[in-house]
Amino acid sequence: MKIKIGIVGYGNLGKAVEKQVLANPNFELVAIFSRRLIKSNFNTKIEPFENYVLFKNKIDIMMLCGSSKNDIINQSIELSRYFNTINSFDTHSKIPSLLSKLNETAILSKKIAITSCGWDPGLFSLIRTLTYAIGNSEPITFWGKGISMGHSDAIRQIDGVDDGIEFTIPNKTALKLAKLGKIDESIPKHLRECYVVCKNKKLEPKIEFEIKNIPNYFSGQPTKINFISQLELLKLKNKMSHKGEVINNFKTSSNSKCQISFKVNMSSNPDFTAMIMIAYIQAIISMLEKNTSGAFTPLDIPIIYLIPSSKREKIISNLC
Amino acid sequence: MKIKIGIVGYGNLGKAVEKQVLANPNFELVAIFSRRLIKSNFNTKIEPFENYVLFKNKIDIMMLCGSSKNDIINQSIELSRYFNTINSFDTHSKIPSLLSKLNETAILSKKIAITSCGWDPGLFSLIRTLTYAIGNSEPITFWGKGISMGHSDAIRQIDGVDDGIEFTIPNKTALKLAKLGKIDESIPKHLRECYVVCKNKKLEPKIEFEIKNIPNYFSGQPTKINFISQLELLKLKNKMSHKGEVINNFKTSSNSKCQISFKVNMSSNPDFTAMIMIAYIQAIISMLEKNTSGAFTPLDIPIIYLIPSSKREKIISNLC
Repeated sequence: MKIKIGIVGYGNLGKAVEKQVLANPNFELVAIFSRRLIKSNFNTKIEPFENYVLFKNKIDIMMLCGSSKNDIINQSIELSRYFNTINSFDTHSKIPSLLSKLNETAILSKKIAITSCGWDPGLFSLIRTLTYAIGNSEPITFWGKGISMGHSDAIRQIDGVDDGIEFTIPNKTALKLAKLGKIDESIPKHLRECYVVCKNKKLEPKIEFEIKNIPNYFSGQPTKINFISQLELLKLKNKMSHKGEVINNFKTSSNSKCQISFKVNMSSNPDFTAMIMIAYIQAIISMLEKNTSGAFTPLDIPIIYLIPSSKREKIISNLC
Repeated sequence: MKIKIGIVGYGNLGKAVEKQVLANPNFELVAIFSRRLIKSNFNTKIEPFENYVLFKNKIDIMMLCGSSKNDIINQSIELSRYFNTINSFDTHSKIPSLLSKLNETAILSKKIAITSCGWDPGLFSLIRTLTYAIGNSEPITFWGKGISMGHSDAIRQIDGVDDGIEFTIPNKTALKLAKLGKIDESIPKHLRECYVVCKNKKLEPKIEFEIKNIPNYFSGQPTKINFISQLELLKLKNKMSHKGEVINNFKTSSNSKCQISFKVNMSSNPDFTAMIMIAYIQAIISMLEKNTSGAFTPLDIPIIYLIPSSKREKIISNLC
């Protein structure tokens, strides 16, 4: 029997999830839910967001692809009353509180909610926590060069911004020092380069000020704002590639050195994020088989749950 | 209350575990068990192996540091009747059968057994399985240059070998091709360079033949055997550094490219392996808190279990 999937939100991530769900014979894509009047690139059924309740028993897993800042923080809890859900919520500082609220709802509804499940947070969280536990040492993360979906989205929420994106650019000196285990807090690790479209030129200083002060996203970090035309922005928006690296250097009690590095490099950030979210669909199935409910980040889920139980012995022989 | 630790086996790994357990204020090192007449470098109490039964209620966790090939495969099951255990068993092909036997014993004794918990198998198993699940693509692993403890041990089990070690050396062309996603099975990924001490020169051809045919370790792989003196070998044995890398290249259904690489680099292989085994002591504690018993590889254990429950919320805020 096919797993029935719904998608909420039809931006870059929603479109990437749609393509990959359609390409997988294990899944049936039931509908895409959106607050906007949209048309699917592949004739998927479109439903107004508020109709989701009507799909209570018709969708097994909802893939939440809206904005972390404004959509997922509320939608995830609302939808968890009716569906198993997966999101890639990326406001790091709010993960614990969202996790705890989601957990309450999901336990009541006997559903599973997987949150913060992308490459960062997600894969990088796994590596940071694992290497911290081994080396008792704080890992360092570098991102880019690439567009951050979360940061771009935060820019677009500012009043007066017609459109905008952010490129995260690692500081090469900082990266070099981190690999040598010699970085300290005084060196900025990234430049945040923003491209903003604003039809009303008078608003530019206000917008610049507001972006630079968005907490968690830009505040306290080297940030450069460029105002450009919509046409120029559309060209930049096609640059979907991204990169990232987690580095952890530490010493054992007997002073021997260890370095761990985990690197990802992708030609499309939304495609890669979608792949990770889709891999965790199997984790939901594995947990439902064990009558589990509640909210989880990838940190809470054994990696073996990403493999169907019928294939585990073979996978352990090959990959363990 | 301190966690009471025992160590079985006092080779390089046992010595590394001893040093790190002694340096950690959360642990009390009760005794080292060995079949040989040994003396601890740090005045730890030494017990003949067979005395372990007398320590049934005096040791919480036994760290198994013997040879995978001859010791752990039997000792782990025997000791699991009385103790929680951690080992870094590295005969990949025999992991599923050991896991299943260990699981039976550990469930009966209400203990936890963690097996194949080093950097490979262990960390690399996590990355291989995770990236396979995301990309539906087989990862490639490179090791070295460095001494493989498992392979060296396998050499020393051969009749007539007085001592010996193996250096695993990655094939640079293969590594380059793998990073480009262009490697195929015809290209050997490693050279296995062996240094063997054998007092009886007449036995050399027999030993060379036997080493090259050890299944799972050397058979079917480019292997070079060098016969050297004990003095020369002792010098080589001090080279404890090692490296390794897991690479996975794949495409999404819409043809965008992803590359994931996980790299470790260590000045002492036994020290790093000991650190990983010791990090998983916390996983045993986390599982005992949940009244779990049975056998597990790192694949079966959520990464969050490596963090004490009292520290989890803070860690999730910082590292997730």
